[in-house]
Amino acid sequence: MFIEDVNKMKVGIMGGTGNIGEGLARRICLGGKYDVVIGSRETSKAEVAADGVVCCLKENKCTLTTCSGATNADVCDCDIIIMSLPFDKLESTIETIGKSKFENKIVVSLINPMIRNPKEKYFLPDCPTEGSAALALKKLLPESAKICTGFNNVAAGKWMQLEEELDYSVVVCGDDADAKKRVMDLVSSVSKLQPLNGGPLAVSGIIESITPLVITLAMNNGLKDVGVYFR
Amino acid sequence: MFIEDVNKMKVGIMGGTGNIGEGLARRICLGGKYDVVIGSRETSKAEVAADGVVCCLKENKCTLTTCSGATNADVCDCDIIIMSLPFDKLESTIETIGKSKFENKIVVSLINPMIRNPKEKYFLPDCPTEGSAALALKKLLPESAKICTGFNNVAAGKWMQLEEELDYSVVVCGDDADAKKRVMDLVSSVSKLQPLNGGPLAVSGIIESITPLVITLAMNNGLKDVGVYFR
Repeated sequence: MFIEDVNKMKVGIMGGTGNIGEGLARRICLGGKYDVVIGSRETSKAEVAADGVVCCLKENKCTLTTCSGATNADVCDCDIIIMSLPFDKLESTIETIGKSKFENKIVVSLINPMIRNPKEKYFLPDCPTEGSAALALKKLLPESAKICTGFNNVAAGKWMQLEEELDYSVVVCGDDADAKKRVMDLVSSVSKLQPLNGGPLAVSGIIESITPLVITLAMNNGLKDVGVYFR
Repeated sequence: MFIEDVNKMKVGIMGGTGNIGEGLARRICLGGKYDVVIGSRETSKAEVAADGVVCCLKENKCTLTTCSGATNADVCDCDIIIMSLPFDKLESTIETIGKSKFENKIVVSLINPMIRNPKEKYFLPDCPTEGSAALALKKLLPESAKICTGFNNVAAGKWMQLEEELDYSVVVCGDDADAKKRVMDLVSSVSKLQPLNGGPLAVSGIIESITPLVITLAMNNGLKDVGVYFR
């Protein structure tokens, strides 16, 4: 156990006070393999969210990992940084922090920009000119940053329902083999998620488009929180 | 049985002599609810393929349905027409037949145009300017034709392996509710396929892009014939 603690990697979640971010923090901590830092523009908000995660860990008698709150800038000290932000907040957030903070970092994008047509019961991807949110993020960060997709298609409502296992596939795309391997390890530490190597970041647009599809499928088939499984 | 025979709908498969088309013909016939007409440019080729299906039905002691061969033009007499053609053959095939033959027909597109990068182990959609192959097909056919997607993401290799159940989702998109319902009924007659209402035809581009993704996933994860299941 001592050795495990020393080697434990830190995962930072930027925009970690949203529903997905906080649920993701709980799920990763409960997996017992990574410490988590929740980031927000305001430290106090991040600390409240982190306190919620710590309570949840105590309730589940999970003593292997910790969770703390920090500014989005401080999240950049983590080994893996998950960007759980709306697409339109990405550029300003990175500008505020300073892009040099992302040098050599593994950065995970779970961002899926979409056009909502709830009245007509369908959602479509709102694809940036770069081809995907992940490819747009790559353009905003230093060349040494290793961008991967991850956790894109898990229904938002599922993250916080801790009594339910997440028995879905998570496709990880990226151009750096080592970073991709580390993100796939992170994915496999969470519930029953099945990590799959999705090839280079060029594939990320397809992954992002599956999220509006699963929402459309839920709306048109009387289902709730639809997820995807590849087999 | 007599009543059933009288009411049986006919499904035509244009380009039915390819691997997918012939496998699809077998699977639909074995489902016992639809008669099938296999179409080809040359009737003799279509008849050979249909003979193969009839042999397969006999082997499986399936006497409920029939399969015959015809020209692609004759396939247009069927109630449901499945377009199992390469994208680049679509326009010329419809021109040869004459688009008026498609008036009021239910037309199913399983076409997924893609760019192949096997050396770099990834495939991408090769999206026509209309937004998808199904939307491009809509432009080629009369306004009264009811276009739906269907069977797009089932791995090509799976269709002919009759000993294996097809336990996958099939997303059916389309702008005509009744046609979509009929295509979903057809899907649910095949093996264990789960039909899902995917909303309007505007969604079809996402469905088509999942096919290059499942090939990419197979190549990068040591898997074979990857399919998709939504749940």
